[in-house]
Amino acid sequence: MNTPIDMDSAELHFIGHVSTSCEDKHKVPKYFTESERRGILEIFPQYREALHTLEAGQTIVALFWLHESQRETLQVYPRGDISRGLHGVFATRSPNRPNPIGLSELYIERIDGLQIHVNHLDVINNTPLIDIKKKIPGL
Amino acid sequence: MNTPIDMDSAELHFIGHVSTSCEDKHKVPKYFTESERRGILEIFPQYREALHTLEAGQTIVALFWLHESQRETLQVYPRGDISRGLHGVFATRSPNRPNPIGLSELYIERIDGLQIHVNHLDVINNTPLIDIKKKIPGL
Repeated sequence: MNTPIDMDSAELHFIGHVSTSCEDKHKVPKYFTESERRGILEIFPQYREALHTLEAGQTIVALFWLHESQRETLQVYPRGDISRGLHGVFATRSPNRPNPIGLSELYIERIDGLQIHVNHLDVINNTPLIDIKKKIPGL
Repeated sequence: MNTPIDMDSAELHFIGHVSTSCEDKHKVPKYFTESERRGILEIFPQYREALHTLEAGQTIVALFWLHESQRETLQVYPRGDISRGLHGVFATRSPNRPNPIGLSELYIERIDGLQIHVNHLDVINNTPLIDIKKKIPGL
């Protein structure tokens, strides 16, 4: 049987955070596809076992909590381009949205214990990490 | 300046839920890439404006809260195949993980107000919806 869902919210537990040189959200690349920035995913010790079999050379999907975003924003001009007209945030990749989760495809260059060294970062220093997934075709 | 992050959690606000015929998580397709199931993303009225410019024929990325998952699971046999050995959940797409967020690439067949009719669903009926994003190359 399916469990009835009465809840309208859930609590995320951060699994780590990003360590990188970029501190300014206005200077960070807008997409991982446009980024050659390196940094480290610092994983909290209680999640050590969940890293088993991750290794250098793999591409992963990382989910971030974009903590400087505005959750009340429902419409935006994509990339600030007024000529494109207002779009609902669900039709864009704006970081401003009701649940500001960022998706990035990152390349693992090296793993040292709880430190995952990655390339193609598009988030700022200290951004909380929510999840890491294996990359599959498409997503 | 970067805002210091003292928090170790954040609250998700569901933006809607899925309406589909599949009630059993053991029978649902494991990936959207293997699914021809149709269903409806039912969006809560307060997010109506955020749907502006979404339309039939688009492919979207949907983020779900996999409410029947086990958040304490840190290692799994991928797809239950013991011959593959134990993997950390961060090296898999297992729904069981500290923050059970599912990523699906869905095709919009039709939109009726707050109802988005989609194909390729890989989640069960009543699964809470967290976010919808434009599909970009890669993710």
